[in-house]
Amino acid sequence: MIHNGVLIDDTYAEAFGMKATRIIITADNLTWAKNAANAAFGFATSVIACGCEAGIERELAPDETPDGRPGVAGLLFAMSTKELAKQLERRIGQGVLTCPSTAVFAGCDSEEKLPLGKNLRYFGDGWQISKVIAGRRYWRIPVMDGEFLAEESTGLLRSVGGGNFLVLARSRCQALSACEAAVLAIAKVPGVITPFPGGVVRSGSKIGSKYKALPASTNDAFCPTLRGVTESELSPEVEAVLEIVIDGLSDADMHAAMKAGLEAICEIGAAGGIVRLSAGNYGGKLGQFHYRLREILA
Amino acid sequence: MIHNGVLIDDTYAEAFGMKATRIIITADNLTWAKNAANAAFGFATSVIACGCEAGIERELAPDETPDGRPGVAGLLFAMSTKELAKQLERRIGQGVLTCPSTAVFAGCDSEEKLPLGKNLRYFGDGWQISKVIAGRRYWRIPVMDGEFLAEESTGLLRSVGGGNFLVLARSRCQALSACEAAVLAIAKVPGVITPFPGGVVRSGSKIGSKYKALPASTNDAFCPTLRGVTESELSPEVEAVLEIVIDGLSDADMHAAMKAGLEAICEIGAAGGIVRLSAGNYGGKLGQFHYRLREILA
Amino acid sequence: MIHNGVLIDDTYAEAFGMKATRIIITADNLTWAKNAANAAFGFATSVIACGCEAGIERELAPDETPDGRPGVAGLLFAMSTKELAKQLERRIGQGVLTCPSTAVFAGCDSEEKLPLGKNLRYFGDGWQISKVIAGRRYWRIPVMDGEFLAEESTGLLRSVGGGNFLVLARSRCQALSACEAAVLAIAKVPGVITPFPGGVVRSGSKIGSKYKALPASTNDAFCPTLRGVTESELSPEVEAVLEIVIDGLSDADMHAAMKAGLEAICEIGAAGGIVRLSAGNYGGKLGQFHYRLREILA
Amino acid sequence: MIHNGVLIDDTYAEAFGMKATRIIITADNLTWAKNAANAAFGFATSVIACGCEAGIERELAPDETPDGRPGVAGLLFAMSTKELAKQLERRIGQGVLTCPSTAVFAGCDSEEKLPLGKNLRYFGDGWQISKVIAGRRYWRIPVMDGEFLAEESTGLLRSVGGGNFLVLARSRCQALSACEAAVLAIAKVPGVITPFPGGVVRSGSKIGSKYKALPASTNDAFCPTLRGVTESELSPEVEAVLEIVIDGLSDADMHAAMKAGLEAICEIGAAGGIVRLSAGNYGGKLGQFHYRLREILA
Repeated sequence: MIHNGVLIDDTYAEAFGMKATRIIITADNLTWAKNAANAAFGFATSVIACGCEAGIERELAPDETPDGRPGVAGLLFAMSTKELAKQLERRIGQGVLTCPSTAVFAGCDSEEKLPLGKNLRYFGDGWQISKVIAGRRYWRIPVMDGEFLAEESTGLLRSVGGGNFLVLARSRCQALSACEAAVLAIAKVPGVITPFPGGVVRSGSKIGSKYKALPASTNDAFCPTLRGVTESELSPEVEAVLEIVIDGLSDADMHAAMKAGLEAICEIGAAGGIVRLSAGNYGGKLGQFHYRLREILA
Repeated sequence: MIHNGVLIDDTYAEAFGMKATRIIITADNLTWAKNAANAAFGFATSVIACGCEAGIERELAPDETPDGRPGVAGLLFAMSTKELAKQLERRIGQGVLTCPSTAVFAGCDSEEKLPLGKNLRYFGDGWQISKVIAGRRYWRIPVMDGEFLAEESTGLLRSVGGGNFLVLARSRCQALSACEAAVLAIAKVPGVITPFPGGVVRSGSKIGSKYKALPASTNDAFCPTLRGVTESELSPEVEAVLEIVIDGLSDADMHAAMKAGLEAICEIGAAGGIVRLSAGNYGGKLGQFHYRLREILA
Repeated sequence: MIHNGVLIDDTYAEAFGMKATRIIITADNLTWAKNAANAAFGFATSVIACGCEAGIERELAPDETPDGRPGVAGLLFAMSTKELAKQLERRIGQGVLTCPSTAVFAGCDSEEKLPLGKNLRYFGDGWQISKVIAGRRYWRIPVMDGEFLAEESTGLLRSVGGGNFLVLARSRCQALSACEAAVLAIAKVPGVITPFPGGVVRSGSKIGSKYKALPASTNDAFCPTLRGVTESELSPEVEAVLEIVIDGLSDADMHAAMKAGLEAICEIGAAGGIVRLSAGNYGGKLGQFHYRLREILA
Repeated sequence: MIHNGVLIDDTYAEAFGMKATRIIITADNLTWAKNAANAAFGFATSVIACGCEAGIERELAPDETPDGRPGVAGLLFAMSTKELAKQLERRIGQGVLTCPSTAVFAGCDSEEKLPLGKNLRYFGDGWQISKVIAGRRYWRIPVMDGEFLAEESTGLLRSVGGGNFLVLARSRCQALSACEAAVLAIAKVPGVITPFPGGVVRSGSKIGSKYKALPASTNDAFCPTLRGVTESELSPEVEAVLEIVIDGLSDADMHAAMKAGLEAICEIGAAGGIVRLSAGNYGGKLGQFHYRLREILA
């Protein structure tokens, strides 16, 4: 299958079940809502070393938030409910409770809940006040700029992590330019984030290493400088490969995001230096969600 | 002492010895250098829950970096050398190694060293190559967009953390506006960062809590909503208090940053709703560095 | 009428018929589409001295643009078709034709047309090539980075300019903070722009002046520093007044934008220092469109 | 001469004498100072159709501005003192007088002066107040958010416009990426701006056209798509050419900026797809300032 001069591999991205939540951070203005979100969701590119994967889903206008102020919606993903709860409490405690003028709300509903204000309230040293409005409990915690308002809890969602595709291009500049367009297109899809720096990862890995202590190492088959010394996957004109990794709240969200990203790359096409699109998987045995590139682009 | 209508408390900020390092991240353009820095230095507001305090010190033009590309200088602070080394490796591994087109270099010198490329190199699975230029060792680690260049190690510095001052104002809006100016002024001082979200913290704390498990809790004496129910520090016209926390590579850097921040607030003065400037300390017994507001502003 | 502690004046904004168009600027990435838009739509706050009022309506994902690249939609408003055509040609010629990687397309349809590529093509010095796709004509003009693609013409729309409201607050800080929220809310409404710097104007004017050559001068009735020396409109607690001016493609767009902006201010309310909302008009004889605040907020 | 694989043409940029001024815009915070500057200095890429060339020179910390607030320094260039005065008044009147919380000051000194507050004061309708501090006159003009403070006049400088160089690259992506680095490097040099969108221009022109009414047209010798049909300057591997145009307050500033830009491109070098550096001139008879690439890079 060739789209606008780009070879589409007959392969699929293999993704995993994860636990996730959406929260809403508001503030007196959008700048400070984003300051809080950047502090809370930074250093969250990969669950293995960061504990969670997180990011801003989108900006919210005043009429889209619970308290009528500008805000952002953020998504957090982790491998277990326990780890998600731990990361959520720690990151909201360090990045939002601390941040001038902010409040925090649940951004999704579910039977099972994750604590939000429920634990953070103890910072109030007994002066915190609880309030129930329309069946939802909120905490007002006294702080130096007034009160930190935090909803009691947020929803726990069964979600999908690790959707991905690989962009093979004639130069790094062209690979990166195409990925920037894809990240932008994916950002318009609700329910997803691209957790790596700027939405893109260049250190693709394979399972295992010659060093026994390491569970993973560089994906030599996709490294252009190793073409002569390893069993390479790369044809001679490929000078750079980049990967986009996606986490989504549902299988449908992930499908929409994969489609938006892949189509953005194909639009740029061979004229923009794109040679081939591929995806990463583990033979299909580890992850229960499979996204076949050719079906998505059909 | 009154400056431009602002009462300057006769008190001091109490700061602590910390371990720190400066690193330089470069990339094909400034956007991607910042993407890496934001991923690596996010979620780093306070050593207690984040492991380190970190942030961008400043942007670098191509002629200020080791490889002639745009970049940023970043600072990391931790309580021990061991924790600093751990956080450095993890954060560079997750935020810079992963980020398209980046390289990482030492940003300071010292006898004692922290590993940088020294440990990250193993990701190369044996294909990494070492190179010594002008007495410094670098690692070239094959990745999908070419090579990740990482200097072997970076310097370890004895530094100062927890410099601070408190801004008491007539409204939250005015407190925040003044703090934005102060953060901007501090950002021009070399060798310092303001690690909290947007550089400002509103959840000032006191040691201890009525809940035994908690080591700290809200600083009720500075909470405007608790004026009637606690022994308050706040006069009636104070509606909001914000704090700026500073980490610096040296005592001189900290002094310069405190001065820049305090002067920016005083410039705004009573006309901009500023009532009083104060600072946080623990009676002087815990931290070896004391910054007296009135001396700094004399 | 009082909303959340804010007095809503029983008055209306008086707006005028204007000529307008929407164009779409695309580029290899969003940064460069915005660079072009900022160059083309800058210095366009008021028709009187700038010739037109212009701004970015919204950012566009690759799947929302004619050539599948990231882009922005921009709106231009002028008092006559002739002036609009002149400004359009000059601003696209200076800001988009010159800007690396960009293309320009019609963003609306109509019987009557404004020239776009039709005049700009002559820059090609005879090497320009015309192409008709699906009934629309495009010009390919050779430039140093490839070709500048410009659609032959864009639509001419009958639109509405000069919708407005006034925000009266206890401090400038609070007035500005509220207006930032309102501008953000209005930005989510399709078909409108807020042409003044950052979307807000502080130099409200009245018709006439003591200096004969000047057609307008400061609106002294709304100047806080003139309360003692002129017939003031301001009660004692009002320390600052700001105005938001809106241009919209239709009466319905303007109504939606006025509503979004007014509601954002009311949400902030008296707690955020907002005292009163008013609007500017000329007794209703000059402009054919009237937007009554109380009806919009009813 | 070859630098890092890049051929340096044995040619020079030909630049012209222009009139210029520097002004300082301050505001309650940096965001609003930039909002004003973007409104005032937008649509100012080329003197021919915009009246002037203008841009932000750099951001200023509170301790670098006359009123101790955050600000920006901006530069304006025009062909005559009369046109410069006209553009200055109009652009400050539309972009700064209108913008919440701003003030405007002279940013340079000289015997000859350009009016700043001197003419804008009449907006005050007689309520403006003059004040002389340390020998400099300021105007306080009542507006709705308080007072607009404008210094009486600013300096008039003899300056240099139209410094330039051409970047020839293997792909548009690489040309653009290199130019972004050069613009960033030039931005660190005091006294200069790069007036085109994002600092870069792709529509290089030659004098004259086959259409008699047009004084200039596309520089066909540097258009890659015209290689087969015109007398081309481009070798086969060049796929894109971009130009950086620089205006500077002095010959020394221009020299420093040319050097910073050219060196940034050379650093990227052949490995980043750069083939050749050239410059535009008119045989040396029109402009009195000549910048020889090889001397600058020697």
